[in-house]
Amino acid sequence: MTKFDVLTVGNAIVDIIANCEENFLTDNAINKGAMNLVDAERAEMLYSRMGPALEASGGSAGNTAAGVASFGGKAAYFGKVSADQLGDIFAHDIRAQGVHFETKPLEGFPPTARSMIFVTPDGERSMNTYLGACVELGPEDVEDEVVAQSKVTYFEGYLWDPPRAKDAIRECARIAHENGREVAMTLSDSFCVDRYRGEFLELMRSGTVDIVFANRAELLALYQMDDFEAALEKIASECKIAAVTNSEHGSVVIRGSERVNISAIPVHRVVDTTGAGDLYASGFLYGYTQGLSLQACGDLGSLAAGTIIQQIGPRPMESLANLARKSGLI
Amino acid sequence: MTKFDVLTVGNAIVDIIANCEENFLTDNAINKGAMNLVDAERAEMLYSRMGPALEASGGSAGNTAAGVASFGGKAAYFGKVSADQLGDIFAHDIRAQGVHFETKPLEGFPPTARSMIFVTPDGERSMNTYLGACVELGPEDVEDEVVAQSKVTYFEGYLWDPPRAKDAIRECARIAHENGREVAMTLSDSFCVDRYRGEFLELMRSGTVDIVFANRAELLALYQMDDFEAALEKIASECKIAAVTNSEHGSVVIRGSERVNISAIPVHRVVDTTGAGDLYASGFLYGYTQGLSLQACGDLGSLAAGTIIQQIGPRPMESLANLARKSGLI
Repeated sequence: MTKFDVLTVGNAIVDIIANCEENFLTDNAINKGAMNLVDAERAEMLYSRMGPALEASGGSAGNTAAGVASFGGKAAYFGKVSADQLGDIFAHDIRAQGVHFETKPLEGFPPTARSMIFVTPDGERSMNTYLGACVELGPEDVEDEVVAQSKVTYFEGYLWDPPRAKDAIRECARIAHENGREVAMTLSDSFCVDRYRGEFLELMRSGTVDIVFANRAELLALYQMDDFEAALEKIASECKIAAVTNSEHGSVVIRGSERVNISAIPVHRVVDTTGAGDLYASGFLYGYTQGLSLQACGDLGSLAAGTIIQQIGPRPMESLANLARKSGLI
Repeated sequence: MTKFDVLTVGNAIVDIIANCEENFLTDNAINKGAMNLVDAERAEMLYSRMGPALEASGGSAGNTAAGVASFGGKAAYFGKVSADQLGDIFAHDIRAQGVHFETKPLEGFPPTARSMIFVTPDGERSMNTYLGACVELGPEDVEDEVVAQSKVTYFEGYLWDPPRAKDAIRECARIAHENGREVAMTLSDSFCVDRYRGEFLELMRSGTVDIVFANRAELLALYQMDDFEAALEKIASECKIAAVTNSEHGSVVIRGSERVNISAIPVHRVVDTTGAGDLYASGFLYGYTQGLSLQACGDLGSLAAGTIIQQIGPRPMESLANLARKSGLI
């Protein structure tokens, strides 16, 4: 008997979301579609140029935990906020979604992380993240019992940016495997893959990670290839399960010799792509921890991703469980 | 030559917005559709019961200032935040919309005001406001030159809740009238009218206020009547201009013997009524300070109100100037 279906670990971030025109990105040297790390000074400068915004709890793995809980799964989260107003908002939102979240907040400086997300008219989001209190996440934040009692522990590649989170992850992976659980990761972002390619490959090759989530760009970046099929074959040989998303073309899930191609759901209008990959992972992992087929897992991922890109903000405003029932997926 | 079209004065509030079911309101003794004042303890209790939320800058008169600026008008705002993260968010958003906002933030306790807004499936919002730093707004926050140089100074009836804001308003009205400007107010909320009926009537009868905005419920509450037409006649006799909204039935604007009936715009789906009245006032006042006819002023009000109820949050995400141009109104 496990207490949790999915534990996720990530940078605990509040999103600050505003629309902008295409030229705003080039004028401000923001990599479109990417997660751009910014220091406090650049954060302030960009905020001064940002239009009126909305705030919403975010953080890639936080969004995934919220998605799992919205499907009706039992979710937990580790991530570091500061004891400030944004930290209170983050903690409220993830707990209100039903996620176990007890990581001790940091007292004092730096403040809770925020990501300024500029959404262009095509719905694409470009993130500018000030890591704030996330730099303090470390092995002391690992709740051993939670890891031991989670079917899957999932973490974001972004955790290689702060200095000590990777130590927490290695500790989590050790506990998870000792307890016969599985470990999953997302490659997060193609620039992030460029920063940590060797370490990410080592995580897979050493068996630290069992299940890998990536999008097409991240997968190609990982192997520095431009042949999608060849890269798919490669990643499939290096982990137990690879789930690779490819925008409106759907996704591919490979486990050993088993391969399924998953369709994306029809999308009326792309409002804001923030959270698409995170929610794909939540649908997949919810299905996976319920023992569903890879096809069903992927379909749940498509449903969650397709839903989130039709709203503002990275966490579902509707119950994913209800949507999945309406779609006949659960 | 005036520097500003519209100066607005109000409680500076960050909205915390979540969906809820109808029974949540009754279970928690929240007056539906109203602004419910809450103390710090009840705020904490309600927040603990609230679902995952979005944050957006709000405050009735702040929304009106943002709306005027979105139409292309020159707007200014007085309101008190605290020097904290929510205060920074409020200040950012209103300035990013192009509104002059230089009220000195409060250092230390209490924190920036927030309103927990529960949106029921019918789109109606029920607000629960903790006034926080707003209780410190006073005559010392009046920027004389801004009042003197604003065509219209507009304030919310809600300002009668904190202790000293009414003194600031009387000071503003004096300066405005000395400079040949006009003063406008909104009755804000029918419960607010019940709290301050005598004082609101005195503001009109003494000529402190020239233009009054109300919705049907507020107007009926003001005169404790249930005959809408009779109440309209009464208010029209007590101020220069009365603009009274009546939900999907549109609005009525009366100036002396001149009366125009304004239609509401067609609405695809009511998502969140937060800001409807505030944005009606912004459209009306933008038109009014551009010297447009009462019909055109009312039509701009309908456009802004109809737009805001089809989105989440109380401030327009699209340019109202663009929408007004597309509609042929300006």
